[in-house]
Amino acid sequence: MSEIKVAVLSADARQDTTVTTGTKAWELFKEQPDVIAARVSTGSTTEPALKDLSYELGDGDEVEGVAIDSADGHDILRHSCAHVLAQAVQDLFPEAKLGIGPPIKDGFYYDFDVETPFTPDDLAKLETRMRKIIKDNQRFSRRVTTDEDALAELADEPYKVELIGLKGGVSTSSTTGDGSTGEIGGVEGASAEVGAGELTIYDNIDRNGEVAWKDLCRGPHLPTTKRIPAFKLMRSAAAYWRGNEKNKQLQRIYGTAWESKDALDDYLHRLEEAEKRDHRKLGRELDLFSFPDEIGSGLPVFHPKGGVIKREMEDYVRRRHIEDGFEYVGTPHIAKEGLFYTSGHLPYYGEGMFPPLDVDGMDYRLKAMNCPMHNLIFRSRQRSYRELPLRLFEFGHVYRHEKSGVVHGLTRVRGFAQDDSHSYVTPEQAPAEIKHLLDFVLGLLKDFGLDDFYLELSTRDDSKDKFIGSDEDWAIATKVLEDVATDSGLELVPDPGGAAYYGPKISVQARDAIGRTWQMSTIQYDFNQPSTDRFNLEYVAPDGSKQQPVMIHSAKFGSIERFLGVLVEHYAGAFPPWLAPVQVQAIPVADTFADYLYDVARQMQARGIRVEVDDSDDRMQKKIRNAQLQKVPFMLIAGAEDLEKGAVSFRYRDGRQDNGVPVAEAIDRVAAAIASREQV
Amino acid sequence: MSEIKVAVLSADARQDTTVTTGTKAWELFKEQPDVIAARVSTGSTTEPALKDLSYELGDGDEVEGVAIDSADGHDILRHSCAHVLAQAVQDLFPEAKLGIGPPIKDGFYYDFDVETPFTPDDLAKLETRMRKIIKDNQRFSRRVTTDEDALAELADEPYKVELIGLKGGVSTSSTTGDGSTGEIGGVEGASAEVGAGELTIYDNIDRNGEVAWKDLCRGPHLPTTKRIPAFKLMRSAAAYWRGNEKNKQLQRIYGTAWESKDALDDYLHRLEEAEKRDHRKLGRELDLFSFPDEIGSGLPVFHPKGGVIKREMEDYVRRRHIEDGFEYVGTPHIAKEGLFYTSGHLPYYGEGMFPPLDVDGMDYRLKAMNCPMHNLIFRSRQRSYRELPLRLFEFGHVYRHEKSGVVHGLTRVRGFAQDDSHSYVTPEQAPAEIKHLLDFVLGLLKDFGLDDFYLELSTRDDSKDKFIGSDEDWAIATKVLEDVATDSGLELVPDPGGAAYYGPKISVQARDAIGRTWQMSTIQYDFNQPSTDRFNLEYVAPDGSKQQPVMIHSAKFGSIERFLGVLVEHYAGAFPPWLAPVQVQAIPVADTFADYLYDVARQMQARGIRVEVDDSDDRMQKKIRNAQLQKVPFMLIAGAEDLEKGAVSFRYRDGRQDNGVPVAEAIDRVAAAIASREQV
Repeated sequence: MSEIKVAVLSADARQDTTVTTGTKAWELFKEQPDVIAARVSTGSTTEPALKDLSYELGDGDEVEGVAIDSADGHDILRHSCAHVLAQAVQDLFPEAKLGIGPPIKDGFYYDFDVETPFTPDDLAKLETRMRKIIKDNQRFSRRVTTDEDALAELADEPYKVELIGLKGGVSTSSTTGDGSTGEIGGVEGASAEVGAGELTIYDNIDRNGEVAWKDLCRGPHLPTTKRIPAFKLMRSAAAYWRGNEKNKQLQRIYGTAWESKDALDDYLHRLEEAEKRDHRKLGRELDLFSFPDEIGSGLPVFHPKGGVIKREMEDYVRRRHIEDGFEYVGTPHIAKEGLFYTSGHLPYYGEGMFPPLDVDGMDYRLKAMNCPMHNLIFRSRQRSYRELPLRLFEFGHVYRHEKSGVVHGLTRVRGFAQDDSHSYVTPEQAPAEIKHLLDFVLGLLKDFGLDDFYLELSTRDDSKDKFIGSDEDWAIATKVLEDVATDSGLELVPDPGGAAYYGPKISVQARDAIGRTWQMSTIQYDFNQPSTDRFNLEYVAPDGSKQQPVMIHSAKFGSIERFLGVLVEHYAGAFPPWLAPVQVQAIPVADTFADYLYDVARQMQARGIRVEVDDSDDRMQKKIRNAQLQKVPFMLIAGAEDLEKGAVSFRYRDGRQDNGVPVAEAIDRVAAAIASREQV
Repeated sequence: MSEIKVAVLSADARQDTTVTTGTKAWELFKEQPDVIAARVSTGSTTEPALKDLSYELGDGDEVEGVAIDSADGHDILRHSCAHVLAQAVQDLFPEAKLGIGPPIKDGFYYDFDVETPFTPDDLAKLETRMRKIIKDNQRFSRRVTTDEDALAELADEPYKVELIGLKGGVSTSSTTGDGSTGEIGGVEGASAEVGAGELTIYDNIDRNGEVAWKDLCRGPHLPTTKRIPAFKLMRSAAAYWRGNEKNKQLQRIYGTAWESKDALDDYLHRLEEAEKRDHRKLGRELDLFSFPDEIGSGLPVFHPKGGVIKREMEDYVRRRHIEDGFEYVGTPHIAKEGLFYTSGHLPYYGEGMFPPLDVDGMDYRLKAMNCPMHNLIFRSRQRSYRELPLRLFEFGHVYRHEKSGVVHGLTRVRGFAQDDSHSYVTPEQAPAEIKHLLDFVLGLLKDFGLDDFYLELSTRDDSKDKFIGSDEDWAIATKVLEDVATDSGLELVPDPGGAAYYGPKISVQARDAIGRTWQMSTIQYDFNQPSTDRFNLEYVAPDGSKQQPVMIHSAKFGSIERFLGVLVEHYAGAFPPWLAPVQVQAIPVADTFADYLYDVARQMQARGIRVEVDDSDDRMQKKIRNAQLQKVPFMLIAGAEDLEKGAVSFRYRDGRQDNGVPVAEAIDRVAAAIASREQV
């Protein structure tokens, strides 16, 4: 028996070993029950590829185990579970024709062509059937086939036949590379099923060695169905075949699968929490904002209570910027189209911009960014090196033509106020300025209750031509950002290809109260817009020569609207006092004490406190309940004894209550809580 | 000799009298040398008409003298002076053909078809010739003619021939009604020359009884050229015939004429002052704002120093609104077109709006006003009478498609932030709310240094169909506004036909430091938008029934941009400390004292004071001069003695200086001046 050399890689080690020819990958990971697939680099491929554990090792292979709880492991688990779902569907609904079934964020789906939509009852029955298939411990068995054979074998599956016909003609990717970024697989359609290379079918082999079910699939998969530790079907919905509304409507079943029952329970709990915290729901309940159909998709309207929060946020952020040496400027929302050609946003960012409008025979655009206008301010007069860093700052209202399908509440809108700054610096000042900006944005985020961060470094994708500028400039810019990011001590995640067309960026990702991450601040290094063939920005250097500045773009929250949406979810609507629309609800025990509380309220208003007296006809308990529902931080309750003593009962949002608090002390207590900007 | 009865009216009296048939109007005003024309109501006309003093009185006429220094008097004087100019031009340039020559604001012009443009030297010669004509005391003599006769008589004047051909076919008005609102006469062209009624020619009769010159004209005119007390030719410029660039370019001469030499001198002084205060010029010199060509006409960009002023204004105005019970909301800048059809802005205000842009196959518009969106907030949930008055307030950025010809600096822009509020009230609450709003806006204007006001009441023009709503509703609304305006005790000027399509309005006109008036705040009564066939707004009344609120629109400054432009001119760029972009310029006597002043500056910054240290290489006197040019309110100068004593020299913008002021006192002095919001 001949031998081959392979290397087993792990996060921090490489172990070279010799095995006999014909050894399968699983044999390398016998001691690691959480490994469910392998990532293999062969001599003949440049990129490592995901393989089944049944993959037969080749000489020189470098092999890494894929754990079920890793990102790729999750995708493989979920895609395997999608197969089990499809098998169960065809067991119970033999007439069902198969669409596609990719993994998506936190789960998977599978589309079916059936006569009638699935009912919740159907889903329950399918779950039972799936449990049986899992218990059966069927083996996922890979088999290479030809187009002709596959067409014959799957002749009963018209959608699979269509996919085989499309092979190579649609954008393809591996199972894992695809679904993990969302439901994009469901739009393009063929991704998980057919690749550009060889065509493969996966058979589910039962304990008798019979093919219990099969599907056209690139794989890889779990070794057997029993390796699915925990799953749940979530819901079903209609979906057009390949995401095109001209195609037939199929029925999509969504499910989730996890590496353990605990992980599944955690996920369901997070879902429940997220649902309770959904800012669109809370926005309605707390009367913060709305999205009137009459105005249009992605264009929010802030009601008075939402307006209070937005104003507090804007005021605070503006003040912090000014204290930090930023200069507040103001620019219009539209401009002649030529300005955006100068900046390069047209054509490079053209799809993100709203279409033009014709003013006096000339095309104007709603701005999607403020930088071109800040550049005009920079070059409105001669600049000296003494003025640098020059930091221009604006709450610039920008408009971006997000696809209507991705518009979502406040977190993905079409019009928003960007807390946008541009620092103009000498190349030598750039590293210090970027460090300064990073410290500044992290400080701001902390003031809003977010303190769990990691950074992402978005760089150019050398293979794409959507980036402008020389290799050398990109290398310098990327190095500057990388150094600052590394020095920060925060976790740094690479994001190749995620840069803007004009330069690389650092983005700050923040984790919220229930562990979700949100992309917040961005810091971008731009050597392009200042260049001679764009805005031709210059400053006079100490030696009298004209030099080109670097500009650093920075948005602290990305958008005030989005950040407000994130904060609603982070705080579940129970804002800290400084941001709460109503800070104090005053509640008389009976009507006769309303005047007393109005007097207290006036004293509070004089201190700038937002207070309301509930003088409605409701009973006291109802009023307290209403204030709690509105998540008002403090309640001041007053009855006969309070009036006599010049006191109030001081009640917190969580039900704690201090009776007989003198009015002056109650006011001080509220004022101190507001000034601290802390949660109570 | 038969007799007729006439009445002589004056501002506060009516005197009935009997005169012989054939009496001319001038005979009634022999004792009033300032009367230069008559305003006559005859039995056969409903509206009084302006007549020459040579008008022969008829039985039942009501006659009022028109003083030369009244608005109509000025127009007649200036139009007569235009005739004298035209006569002088044809004396000196016999080949010149006559265009038109209406009065305009503060002056007149006349257009001529000549080979070469007039030079300043030509204007001087023309002035000399005009003085001779005036000295000649030629009589303006009115003569009724027919189209045929006039065509024959003026066959050499092709433009007059064209006007006769257009008679009745173009919009016409009396001499006075036309020019007084600006240069509109120059666009339409025929106004002053031919009316819809009989055609008249005015002959200039010299002392020999000969016709020295003549012109097609509706009149009226001064009795003789000698009644022109003071005039001046200002400049010449090219102008298309009838304002249409497809027509031939003529040469226009602008002039002015006044009731006295003093009045002329005052006017020329005001012009000079206005030029020095021109906010476009000061905006450049003080680096406040610019109007980049790359962005587009009427779309200003605020530089850091202008941004400071804008922010101070906005912050203050917002705070005042909130203290006054307004609720701050926020709405997008674009919306589906349908929203503006619901409000009625389309089609009634269609020309004022920017053209549509196509978003996902639907027409969207930039908003030209915020009210439709505030209405959506009002009706986003059920409203109770307890919530009224509900006052929604926003700095709404609106876009109005002003004609490029009228765009002017910041005072007439295409995009601006409107400090816009809408009060929703019960009909019973409307008078009190309007009074409240009027008091509020007057208070705000006073805080910005304006305290000389009058009101204008803009009402419906019954003859036009651009107004919607019933006669009764208009009558009620107009009465409410009129009562409040009258009660205010301010001068009230009627503005018939000036209402918005949806209701009447009061506007506050403020006089600035050099006596010019600016339309500032507006308060509009709107019963239209809340109605069932528009936004169908409702509140629940105490009896449980659904009732329709009235909405009161109110903009306090009209636009922040415009108000900023007005304030630049009002203060001639020397803003009071609270608005000054740089409040303190610190100037070391020599380099060695810069650190000392940096330390003082830090103490000031900690108090929120905007201070800069001039550590440039300039000499001290140059630094002081620069600070004066930048109109910085305070300078702090420090040398050896100051450093020793912990003091500074405290210098005011006007050159006053206090030496040896302890630093703490200097800081207090600056802080107090800022807090007072007073000019220094």
